[in-house]
Amino acid sequence: VTLLALAVSGRGIVDPDAPAVFADDEAFLRGRGAFETVRVYGGRPFLLDAHLDRLEASAARLRLPPVDPEPVRALVEDALEASGEPDCVVRIYWTPGREVDPEPTAYVLVRDVPGDLEELRARGLLLFSVLVGEVSGLLGGVKSTSYALNMVAVDEARRRGADDALFLGSGGVVLECPTSNTWWRRDQTLFTPSLDLGILAGVTRGVVVEVATELGYEVAEGVYPIENLTAAEEAFTTSSVREVMPVVAVDDRPIAVGSAAKELQTGLRLLSAG
Amino acid sequence: VTLLALAVSGRGIVDPDAPAVFADDEAFLRGRGAFETVRVYGGRPFLLDAHLDRLEASAARLRLPPVDPEPVRALVEDALEASGEPDCVVRIYWTPGREVDPEPTAYVLVRDVPGDLEELRARGLLLFSVLVGEVSGLLGGVKSTSYALNMVAVDEARRRGADDALFLGSGGVVLECPTSNTWWRRDQTLFTPSLDLGILAGVTRGVVVEVATELGYEVAEGVYPIENLTAAEEAFTTSSVREVMPVVAVDDRPIAVGSAAKELQTGLRLLSAG
Repeated sequence: VTLLALAVSGRGIVDPDAPAVFADDEAFLRGRGAFETVRVYGGRPFLLDAHLDRLEASAARLRLPPVDPEPVRALVEDALEASGEPDCVVRIYWTPGREVDPEPTAYVLVRDVPGDLEELRARGLLLFSVLVGEVSGLLGGVKSTSYALNMVAVDEARRRGADDALFLGSGGVVLECPTSNTWWRRDQTLFTPSLDLGILAGVTRGVVVEVATELGYEVAEGVYPIENLTAAEEAFTTSSVREVMPVVAVDDRPIAVGSAAKELQTGLRLLSAG
Repeated sequence: VTLLALAVSGRGIVDPDAPAVFADDEAFLRGRGAFETVRVYGGRPFLLDAHLDRLEASAARLRLPPVDPEPVRALVEDALEASGEPDCVVRIYWTPGREVDPEPTAYVLVRDVPGDLEELRARGLLLFSVLVGEVSGLLGGVKSTSYALNMVAVDEARRRGADDALFLGSGGVVLECPTSNTWWRRDQTLFTPSLDLGILAGVTRGVVVEVATELGYEVAEGVYPIENLTAAEEAFTTSSVREVMPVVAVDDRPIAVGSAAKELQTGLRLLSAG
């Protein structure tokens, strides 16, 4: 990871290698922050509006002060310009500010695109399933900085020789991966867990629903046991950074490689270039 | 809240009103931090050893670099001296550091004791129950900075006119409050949820078990439905900051006021003065 640029609301562009967050910021002390990760292609943040909408929604669910999207959008532009990097990843953080004299603050971090993505796409992801039970209704679907469980799950998956975790709900129902949504295909139907399960409504998931429909697939959103995924003709994940990423195994059970993931990845790239 | 002093490992005492945390610290970005809250009486941090032990355990469960307790202890002493306040609250944070060149870092924040504690103790807490279902085994019992759910629960409780939330597990089983443990009494028996439920092993909870036994109470740790608590002869919470705090209602159902909470609070204060 290289942190290419950092912008803070009220302070503008600041040195990314100097401390920028107050130690009593509520996002640091208690994970009371909302965030978004946006892929940037050719200098343009892809689907920024949708990400800002979700940031607003997450802030509301987290009981944070409301997000005013326009200054955040300007901060993103400034940070991108400061980075000088047209193909990169922008992370937007929204915090309520300090405990004393709280002032809501946006942080925009620009980083490089992870170097191993195309290698990973060619090989396909190995997933390790982690039973997490029910998603609490209070914060289901919210993109908060309280991500410790997600990170421990990824760490556990890596210790088991996999690339990423796959969260399962009560009864072995497929939920999502820690930082992406999950999909699989049987014939011309693409299956993906329903948002009613409290999973995150991925921005890329939303676009892939559209792209898939245009490509002639049916999209079925529902409550599916893990066996549906492992018996599929192919499987993949979707997220802003990794885009459409094939899955080739879950818990060492191999999953076939198909062509839908590649088609959708091409469709997504066409959209992002448009 | 007043932030009286701030100390950072490798940097010593720093200005509490200047940014001190890097924007790409993993604790800020993803809630990957462990923390402890310690009450300080007469300049002495109460039960600091137990808190440092738990910090080490939380760091291990969160897959953070191991905590070396001695430098952290020295940092606590320095921060307390810098604060000039003998009766206060120390918060210790342990983070893995930045994404780039990660260096594990301890932050020690000294704050004033909340001003409303004795008023609250005299009146007694109103609790509002929040069903959270199962606690995920991966992070149950870990004190991490991924506290958004806890904070939203407190906010929800306050909107409903209560002081604090009470987490219930599947089937209405009593778990804990967002920042304290829960207790109630029938005759000479004190009931408190078992740590097997994945709740936090409160340092104050541990001491209160000892104090209660010395005072002649039996302590029963188990899996209890909410009805056991609401039908109790008295109820209270325990935590480092609020100590022993009577509960006078759950979801508007009044709970009797008894003398055990007061006895235990006196016992705790005697210990802390010893």
